[in-house]
Amino acid sequence: MDSEQLREYGHRMVDFVADYYKTIETFPVLSQVQPGYLHNLLPESAPDHPETVEQVLDDVKAKILPGVTHWQSPSFFAYFPINGSIAGFLGEMLSAGLNTMSFSWVASPAATELEIVVVDWVAKLLNLPEQFLSKAILVVMIAARDKVLRSVGKKALEKLVVYSSDQTHSSLQKACQLAGIHLENCRVLKTDSSTNYALRPESLQEAVSKDLEAGLIPFFLCGTVGTTSSTAVDPLAALGKIAKSNEMWFHIDAAYAGSACICPEYRQYIHGVETADSFDMNAHKWLLTNFECSLLWVKDQSALTEALSTNPEYLKNKANLVVDYKDWQIPLGRRFRSLKLWMVLRLYGAENLKSYIRNHIKLAKIFEQLVSKDPNFEVVTPRIFSLVCFRIAAVDNDEKKCNNLNRSLLDAVNSSGKLLFSHTLYMCS
Amino acid sequence: MDSEQLREYGHRMVDFVADYYKTIETFPVLSQVQPGYLHNLLPESAPDHPETVEQVLDDVKAKILPGVTHWQSPSFFAYFPINGSIAGFLGEMLSAGLNTMSFSWVASPAATELEIVVVDWVAKLLNLPEQFLSKAILVVMIAARDKVLRSVGKKALEKLVVYSSDQTHSSLQKACQLAGIHLENCRVLKTDSSTNYALRPESLQEAVSKDLEAGLIPFFLCGTVGTTSSTAVDPLAALGKIAKSNEMWFHIDAAYAGSACICPEYRQYIHGVETADSFDMNAHKWLLTNFECSLLWVKDQSALTEALSTNPEYLKNKANLVVDYKDWQIPLGRRFRSLKLWMVLRLYGAENLKSYIRNHIKLAKIFEQLVSKDPNFEVVTPRIFSLVCFRIAAVDNDEKKCNNLNRSLLDAVNSSGKLLFSHTLYMCS
Repeated sequence: MDSEQLREYGHRMVDFVADYYKTIETFPVLSQVQPGYLHNLLPESAPDHPETVEQVLDDVKAKILPGVTHWQSPSFFAYFPINGSIAGFLGEMLSAGLNTMSFSWVASPAATELEIVVVDWVAKLLNLPEQFLSKAILVVMIAARDKVLRSVGKKALEKLVVYSSDQTHSSLQKACQLAGIHLENCRVLKTDSSTNYALRPESLQEAVSKDLEAGLIPFFLCGTVGTTSSTAVDPLAALGKIAKSNEMWFHIDAAYAGSACICPEYRQYIHGVETADSFDMNAHKWLLTNFECSLLWVKDQSALTEALSTNPEYLKNKANLVVDYKDWQIPLGRRFRSLKLWMVLRLYGAENLKSYIRNHIKLAKIFEQLVSKDPNFEVVTPRIFSLVCFRIAAVDNDEKKCNNLNRSLLDAVNSSGKLLFSHTLYMCS
Repeated sequence: MDSEQLREYGHRMVDFVADYYKTIETFPVLSQVQPGYLHNLLPESAPDHPETVEQVLDDVKAKILPGVTHWQSPSFFAYFPINGSIAGFLGEMLSAGLNTMSFSWVASPAATELEIVVVDWVAKLLNLPEQFLSKAILVVMIAARDKVLRSVGKKALEKLVVYSSDQTHSSLQKACQLAGIHLENCRVLKTDSSTNYALRPESLQEAVSKDLEAGLIPFFLCGTVGTTSSTAVDPLAALGKIAKSNEMWFHIDAAYAGSACICPEYRQYIHGVETADSFDMNAHKWLLTNFECSLLWVKDQSALTEALSTNPEYLKNKANLVVDYKDWQIPLGRRFRSLKLWMVLRLYGAENLKSYIRNHIKLAKIFEQLVSKDPNFEVVTPRIFSLVCFRIAAVDNDEKKCNNLNRSLLDAVNSSGKLLFSHTLYMCS
């Protein structure tokens, strides 16, 4: 590793990335390539001999960038965003530069300790209860599964029941599949416009009672703050009460909207978090931290480590009173991710991050008002955070025609390369 | 995102990282801090107002670097290495700069397509069979589990048996725990010095026969090329034959040693890979690609996607004939990791990578000879790749005293901050 060559090429790459951001608006935001395009542009096998940095960067420009959908473009309005930042980029550079592992404390103590510090910093910004210690839903579900199986016996796996709403993120369904929960024991509770697609506590209570009568074991409830389709907010306090009285693990998914709750005026949306066993949010979605950086707080750390720890000889070390993050996660290896979140929090400061969130919500409000004033369009559910769900309004109650019209509009906008939106669908029964 | 500010700060960070490598030998390779050191050095909460890049970099120097164990130091001989490189660092920078997602093809086509290209490039370097398409063991075990449960019924989960040797990586045990395999059905087959700790096919056959007689279902075998303790190589062809005749999923873990197999003279160690269902190696261990970059090849792609796919409305898109990597992995999000492997392959070329591997092995051979010549020391198992297992030799067959002496030596070396080694232990029954 020649440090002067790293310096020279590193400076060149910084200029390349800076130029990319300078010109990002000149690219079509949605990539216009056809499937398989790259296979035809690149050789069949790796070169035997070195190529130059210039050749590679030329290829990035000519062959890779046309295939990139520009998530950092100001014209990108699809999915939930991943808001990178200069501080996040610097943190990524430093993390890649140090190139350490942090599966255990001793493998690189600063990586574990900085992670604890910054995760606590965010917990304070969110005003989370003190018991919340510093990947997400699968880890939590497996911890919950093994906790309940330790008391009822592992053959009871087929009796375990999971509850969520029909608006819950698809990662819950995947976690159930992976954790071996029987799919017929996954209760996907119906929501509707009467609660703006939030889960009704009565629906949950009814489902739980029915399952108990059938001899099943309710064990896991996922509530959401800011659902993927419409940023609905489930009534956490009421749901948590039902979870607690039935000894269920209560997980709160605030992947996107959690970041907004660092502003005191939005903190109300996680009221009831004190009843939860675990709570997660993604700093890479709305807190200026480059992808990926997911924060998970768990009350009972031992439930995680009992399900996830391994301790082979070559990983044993003298530091027994420390956190070994390998026992909190699925893989063994772990990147030094906390560096970028630490840089974001320090280089911007909490007040600027709050202003940044408030400004996004203000812009969404303005857009919502513009849509409301246009008779051709309607706002479908009330806006809460920065997501506005709108559509071309139905004429003569013809929903089918309305859906087709909206699909055509979406396709026309997205294929223009000028703007990128995401769609969603609510299936009426 | 002010591109000129990114340029200015980015250049500063490049210099910081280049200076780090220039001075890396001046740091103690093993961090000398005590647990909790950082908590006392950093404030209790995030700052309300921005700090400067200088303040943060000063803190990195004064507070973070002392807590870092320097995995890139030339004095680092612990675990398996994570060999970063300039090309890998450049790839990480570009990936962080683009800051895209690649959970589905349409989310950023180049990310999916480049990944297919470079994974195929490495498959060719390894001369893998053609059916191997382009994360690792948990994903594979769940695919195998669900494949067999689809045919025998999901209540048979408690009958599924997993086979490996006592030298197999701890990630297999973890995968079993996570996938809900009953721990009494995990056969950890004994190895010994007579096969240099490789799994004997006879041991496997005997265990499988016994389980079949007991009405259990053998379903998963993990073979290893380059075990963590001593880089033992299991006899793949013979193991694969037993797996095939019992309809078991055969997975090969070549996390570390796989990289060496790009050299024709080491390709023999993966002879028999054609009988496997899946094969993985970590480019971040020994192929100059910054952490993390794990490659997994699978013959039957549908077994993976049937276990791991989800398809909610907001992720539906028109590209049906493309790979959506979200269906090959546990999380939804995915980083643009292929950029760094592509850069490594292009900026160094296959021939230089082979020379780099050969040079490591040559250095290990020299060290092995030096140890052999010293009457105080012994080489414990024959060296195959770049790992040399050695110890202070036992005097008068006093193994307990010998172990204590070796432990003291290890502690003395590692706490000096001058060199870092890992240890292992073989438990004789």
